[in-house]
Amino acid sequence: MTYAVGMRLSRGLVFMSDTRTNAGVDNISTFKKMFSWNTPGERTITLLTAGNLATTQAVVSLLEERTKSPENRAPSILEAPTMFQVARIVSKALKEVIEVHSRGGQQADSAFHATLILGGQIKGGQSRLFLIYPEGNFIEAGDDTPFFQIGETKYGRPILVRAYDPNMSFAEAIKLLLVSFDSTIKANLGVGAPLDLQLYDEDSLEAGRKERFEAEDPYFKTISESWGGALKHALEQLPDFET
Amino acid sequence: MTYAVGMRLSRGLVFMSDTRTNAGVDNISTFKKMFSWNTPGERTITLLTAGNLATTQAVVSLLEERTKSPENRAPSILEAPTMFQVARIVSKALKEVIEVHSRGGQQADSAFHATLILGGQIKGGQSRLFLIYPEGNFIEAGDDTPFFQIGETKYGRPILVRAYDPNMSFAEAIKLLLVSFDSTIKANLGVGAPLDLQLYDEDSLEAGRKERFEAEDPYFKTISESWGGALKHALEQLPDFET
Repeated sequence: MTYAVGMRLSRGLVFMSDTRTNAGVDNISTFKKMFSWNTPGERTITLLTAGNLATTQAVVSLLEERTKSPENRAPSILEAPTMFQVARIVSKALKEVIEVHSRGGQQADSAFHATLILGGQIKGGQSRLFLIYPEGNFIEAGDDTPFFQIGETKYGRPILVRAYDPNMSFAEAIKLLLVSFDSTIKANLGVGAPLDLQLYDEDSLEAGRKERFEAEDPYFKTISESWGGALKHALEQLPDFET
Repeated sequence: MTYAVGMRLSRGLVFMSDTRTNAGVDNISTFKKMFSWNTPGERTITLLTAGNLATTQAVVSLLEERTKSPENRAPSILEAPTMFQVARIVSKALKEVIEVHSRGGQQADSAFHATLILGGQIKGGQSRLFLIYPEGNFIEAGDDTPFFQIGETKYGRPILVRAYDPNMSFAEAIKLLLVSFDSTIKANLGVGAPLDLQLYDEDSLEAGRKERFEAEDPYFKTISESWGGALKHALEQLPDFET
């Protein structure tokens, strides 16, 4: 399992993803699910992955190889003129990998499916955020739906829906995401720390701050431990039902 | 879809269930999913249902018929000497209905499965709370896992896990459940008001208070509308990440 969120704020983009992968409960590992490409002053691109690990690693390797010798392996996400074109390249790569893995050969118990969140900005355009489906099509975040979740999305969704504000600071967004991730980690063994964070300042065209929160990270622990009390307190503030 | 919760408190049992059923998003109806039987001074039994509606209605009708002419149709849940025996009767009825519906005949798109929460008390024993699986086996709530959820359980789970307290009053429990249901209703169109509530005072052996919360119920609306603000406020109370 996986949990990852990409969020559009007025001041830029925020990405967070967990690192746990599992095939059954007795075969768990830690893998990065957040990948970034950056040409300073020109473009910055971040990808979050959920789903079959062989699929998502193959997609990232394909994209990565092309960026390294783009003359041989066009199209490259570092050459595409717009984020929409980047989304098309990534979604095409995803569709192809799934097709190749699914065709012939042994059938796997689980599907080869994967879902991706793609965000970034290219000079001349605004930052954009996409959700890419295993079928190879994608949708874009807008003002009405300003964030995307992939993987185990349900436990962490109510707090995002209630507390998201497009004008929140990065610090507030990180706090909100850690609460959402903490609720998910507490409920699903397939989601686990460390958590990767990536910020992107709108129009900076530079890779923003990266952070990794280990399970023992003091700030993450503070949030996790204080949230239970804060929730109970919030509940107490609401009027009781008159029995 | 469905969302229903049965909860054990030190002062008794609390049950809440939604009433929406759907076969696709264009075929929604309202059906009660909470059923109670009561012999004042002797026993009180409550059943919550999730899953295939034909299955759950058949189970309830079977149990109901037997209670009305127990001399012909033993075993009756109004005759069983203990809650454990009641759970065995209900789970056997569930298993039989699923078997009959599944055998031969047309295959349905959806399975005939259903999951039940059963709670109550019989004179001479304590109140007990069970989760009954479609396979016909069941588990009982204990101090470590004092509540059961069935149906669309994920959205409403984090607040239950964080704020449940065995010593809370019925009024507090109702508030907690309404928040949990509200989070679920906001996220899944297959869960909807009105919400049915049933309370049971430990050792009373009387049917406790029943309540139905319509979508426009003033208290439910207050909780729903205040909770967003209360959550935001709770989040603000936590320390910001230092960027």
